[in-house]
Amino acid sequence: MTSIAMIEAAAARLKGHARKTPLLSSPFLDEIAGRRLLVKPECLQHTGSFKFRGGWAALSAMEEEARKRGVIAYSSGNHAQGVAAAAKAHGAPAVIIMPADAPQLKIDNTRALGAEVVLYDRVGGESREEIGTHYAQTRSLTLIKPYDEPQVIAGQGTVGLEIAEQAAAEGVTSGDVLVCCGGGGLTGGVALALEARAPGLRVRPAEPEGFDDVARSLASGQIESNPATSGSICDAILTPAPGEITFPILSRLCGPGIIITEDEALQAMALAFLRLKIVVEPGGAAALAAALFHGDEIEGDAVIAVATGGNVDPAMFSRALDKLA
Amino acid sequence: MTSIAMIEAAAARLKGHARKTPLLSSPFLDEIAGRRLLVKPECLQHTGSFKFRGGWAALSAMEEEARKRGVIAYSSGNHAQGVAAAAKAHGAPAVIIMPADAPQLKIDNTRALGAEVVLYDRVGGESREEIGTHYAQTRSLTLIKPYDEPQVIAGQGTVGLEIAEQAAAEGVTSGDVLVCCGGGGLTGGVALALEARAPGLRVRPAEPEGFDDVARSLASGQIESNPATSGSICDAILTPAPGEITFPILSRLCGPGIIITEDEALQAMALAFLRLKIVVEPGGAAALAAALFHGDEIEGDAVIAVATGGNVDPAMFSRALDKLA
Repeated sequence: MTSIAMIEAAAARLKGHARKTPLLSSPFLDEIAGRRLLVKPECLQHTGSFKFRGGWAALSAMEEEARKRGVIAYSSGNHAQGVAAAAKAHGAPAVIIMPADAPQLKIDNTRALGAEVVLYDRVGGESREEIGTHYAQTRSLTLIKPYDEPQVIAGQGTVGLEIAEQAAAEGVTSGDVLVCCGGGGLTGGVALALEARAPGLRVRPAEPEGFDDVARSLASGQIESNPATSGSICDAILTPAPGEITFPILSRLCGPGIIITEDEALQAMALAFLRLKIVVEPGGAAALAAALFHGDEIEGDAVIAVATGGNVDPAMFSRALDKLA
Repeated sequence: MTSIAMIEAAAARLKGHARKTPLLSSPFLDEIAGRRLLVKPECLQHTGSFKFRGGWAALSAMEEEARKRGVIAYSSGNHAQGVAAAAKAHGAPAVIIMPADAPQLKIDNTRALGAEVVLYDRVGGESREEIGTHYAQTRSLTLIKPYDEPQVIAGQGTVGLEIAEQAAAEGVTSGDVLVCCGGGGLTGGVALALEARAPGLRVRPAEPEGFDDVARSLASGQIESNPATSGSICDAILTPAPGEITFPILSRLCGPGIIITEDEALQAMALAFLRLKIVVEPGGAAALAAALFHGDEIEGDAVIAVATGGNVDPAMFSRALDKLA
């Protein structure tokens, strides 16, 4: 079970390896949001998303013997790149199971970072968990799960430690912290960190329409699943259901989920380009979209949104820029 | 005359107001550059460029009485926005003289930041200096020059203080620091800061083809002018000649200039999108383009490039993204 001590220990191991991303803001975005808006751009993290933190936390916590045998991960792309880069830096072989319909950029990057990529048919219903377990057993690899893994949650939680410190420096000690949410690793990690270091800040998951499993699970009090696992431009955060380890954390600490449309995600990407000069992918823009376009669901004078990743193909980014025309 | 003490004093006044931008990197860019490449993304600064630093340094150094009367600046856009935002925060009225052919985004932003914008005909040969002097005299406004102004140079020099500290933390204490160069305010300020705080790092100006006044001035040892003052996509760094205050600094401290093509600027913007997840404008990409595509003119195992601004229209950014197709 991930604790604040584990998150602090992960932060110590990440120091000098993960980037401390700044907090960004723009008076133009404040005006749209109707309150002060601070954005934590984890798209600027190594490999273009916060996933590098969890990958590094997991790799750096392994026994040397197991690390030499190698690791395996399944991921639509950002966890893949995070684990691949962390494995390479630790001298560990990495096998990554990716859906064949993941953005080509993420597949190419994962290979270029030195990992062996195995593609599977997400739409046809192949189970990445089964494939992952098979590879792990036959090659004695250690499986690094994308979110239901205490060290990964601890690594992602370091985002929360930074938010607590940086928000306080900006004079913000209460309000909502919106986090793009797939399986809940980042959301849970940040919630644990804020519980200990900034108890006035409350985490709220942001999800795209049709993939609102976490919002529904929080509302019903039990793990609810999505009817589909693909079919949204927000590829980074399409997971079947909140995790068995993450859900109890979310349930205990998070406020209600906010559900955004694909069009709102594209508009948020366009505004992040225009006003913050950062590149955000659709799934990484969900929290920013929630802050900008769902202000009536948010309370308080200030809101913080995590822009979780920026691994987007030029064609999709151009689609977002068209929103400014 | 700007000194390291003035730069340190400016840094103290900027603390908590200007952003400390991180140093970014990507193994994919290192491979293209042929050496380790660290990028200082000043596009992430308030108002989207380093110019906010100089604006704040100048405003914060003024007598309260003069500040209440107001300031005036002439600028193709980034200095305009930097001064407008700094003036607004200090409660000072601001008049900004801008060329009528400046990017619409920069004109709109400057107005939205509360400044009174006066447009002039750059192509037709109107002198912004004359217009600026006229307004300054009739309204008793204080002119904040874009580069030939000691406090502005001191403010821009704070970029150099951060580079010295951040590069040392990355283990880089020698090599070239490439800076996109217009009139030489940033280039000179960074050079002064590095002379004092990181003497192993040498500044080199980067300029676009046809507007290489600084490179030619450094080569000849005297101030040389450009034949034109418009006609490049690198609008942010099109100035007639190095300044009378900045040139002696550049001449004493800088290595030879590097001249890049417009196509290289667009390619650098595309790679910054793809690998660093930042939005850079053409003029702000000159130094990155020099690092990526002029490696044979650079010595050493590591190079640092300042990405000076990100105020680019969506249409121009799409032109850059087309380079990835």
